[in-house]
Amino acid sequence: MSGSLAGAEKAGQPVPLAILCGSGAFPLEVAAKAAEAGRAPFLIGIVGSTDAAIEAYPHVWLRMGEVGKLFAALKELSIRDIVLVGAMTRPELTDLRLDWGAVRRAADLARLFRKGDNGLLVGLAAILEGEGVRVVGAHEVAPQLLAPMGPLGSRAPSAEDEADIALAAELLAALSRFDMGQGAVVAGERVLAVEAAEGTDAMLARVAEMRANGRLRLKGPAGVLVKTPKAGQELRLDMPAIGFNTVAGAARASVRGIAVAAGRVLVAERTRCVREADAAGLFIAGFGR
Amino acid sequence: MSGSLAGAEKAGQPVPLAILCGSGAFPLEVAAKAAEAGRAPFLIGIVGSTDAAIEAYPHVWLRMGEVGKLFAALKELSIRDIVLVGAMTRPELTDLRLDWGAVRRAADLARLFRKGDNGLLVGLAAILEGEGVRVVGAHEVAPQLLAPMGPLGSRAPSAEDEADIALAAELLAALSRFDMGQGAVVAGERVLAVEAAEGTDAMLARVAEMRANGRLRLKGPAGVLVKTPKAGQELRLDMPAIGFNTVAGAARASVRGIAVAAGRVLVAERTRCVREADAAGLFIAGFGR
Repeated sequence: MSGSLAGAEKAGQPVPLAILCGSGAFPLEVAAKAAEAGRAPFLIGIVGSTDAAIEAYPHVWLRMGEVGKLFAALKELSIRDIVLVGAMTRPELTDLRLDWGAVRRAADLARLFRKGDNGLLVGLAAILEGEGVRVVGAHEVAPQLLAPMGPLGSRAPSAEDEADIALAAELLAALSRFDMGQGAVVAGERVLAVEAAEGTDAMLARVAEMRANGRLRLKGPAGVLVKTPKAGQELRLDMPAIGFNTVAGAARASVRGIAVAAGRVLVAERTRCVREADAAGLFIAGFGR
Repeated sequence: MSGSLAGAEKAGQPVPLAILCGSGAFPLEVAAKAAEAGRAPFLIGIVGSTDAAIEAYPHVWLRMGEVGKLFAALKELSIRDIVLVGAMTRPELTDLRLDWGAVRRAADLARLFRKGDNGLLVGLAAILEGEGVRVVGAHEVAPQLLAPMGPLGSRAPSAEDEADIALAAELLAALSRFDMGQGAVVAGERVLAVEAAEGTDAMLARVAEMRANGRLRLKGPAGVLVKTPKAGQELRLDMPAIGFNTVAGAARASVRGIAVAAGRVLVAERTRCVREADAAGLFIAGFGR
């Protein structure tokens, strides 16, 4: 907690925390954990992306590009901290509904559209911080969401799984500097799939399809889904995450388990994930560098 | 042409050439070009994989694993050279119909199943060469199939396309040592898709799908499909190739063009590919290192 917030804490006021919510249920879980930790969540929904369930909390809806409206809301509520949570569809510049606050920052916004997803978020964070809003990581307000070292459920990786995990981790490290996906599926030290713009769920669906159509002729559960951050990735902004969808997709792809970089990947809905993984015979495990 | 074949050539006899045919029409094109160059093609079909059109040439059908039958045919016809052409589904060891010739080479065959696709082909070539059969590249018997430097059709890459090509080439170089796919789609210096076990056609279908479902919000044609061999790839065995399917898939994915490593990627059905690319407004171009 920064010094600037100490006054509010001393006065017994919950310190407000803005959560800019991408799609999915994860922003709500972060809000719940942050509330448990004594923060007062204020949720910012993106029209067309964010789940309407955010309306259970104090909230505001914005359209992509309504940057002025965002800053006005933060200022009105004296919010100094913001978390960016969940997937955001990368918009085309011409799709944005730019308000005056956005036009004033047009040069900064234009720069966001030159690079990959990481560039988009880093640029957005720079704009926020340029206005005196501190961008904090979901894991900073809710560290209990981070994957720990070792197995989470009742199964653990075998020695062969460990070899697949090591190869996938090496592959993902080699891909780091290309600002792209953070996942791969490796089976028997063979790379079956690499994630780029399609995301982890679509990559797992592809593995399931290759098994179903005979392109991959594997008997029984095979391979591991591995997720890591990019080297040097700004974890405050864009920490990789797994959740129930990931476990369900991994089960459909008939992998043996899911391995994530311990302390550097978020696990959404952990209880539900572990129950599903145990039922499907999958391991979920955190691994070290 | 090796010294050992000079006698047969001098005598005016066409020198026989075995072509182990994977799926698709490309093995037949290699057979036709080799026949033009004065060789006598003998086609080897894999039951369940190879197109029945190989029966236009002298041929034999084998099941996966009938290694003894393969060597018997080569010996009977005094065939010293073999080309391996077209995609082969990687079989499970237990799916193989092993004959006595295979059992005798069981230890060698078992080694083939430990690694990626490249390992499979390298191992197969080693077994063939261990029996005195020389494995030659499709580009050695039909060099006119190699992509030349520069544009093949009426369009050429723009400066922005060149930047995407350079980034993709760098990415594929970084992936080389993982014995996996040889293709990527990059648009505006963002990596949209990386090929692993699914193959180029499936990767292009994924890009088309991401555009259709809004995951990728790109206006108009965007990005380049880039294909290169792996660094140190055994080009005799497993040279990357593009063909009509690739062009049709690239058109559906609305990329701006296809770039391949000049002199290191084969172009099947070039006339048809160029006509289709021109009609779809795509470039096809060879690029240097």
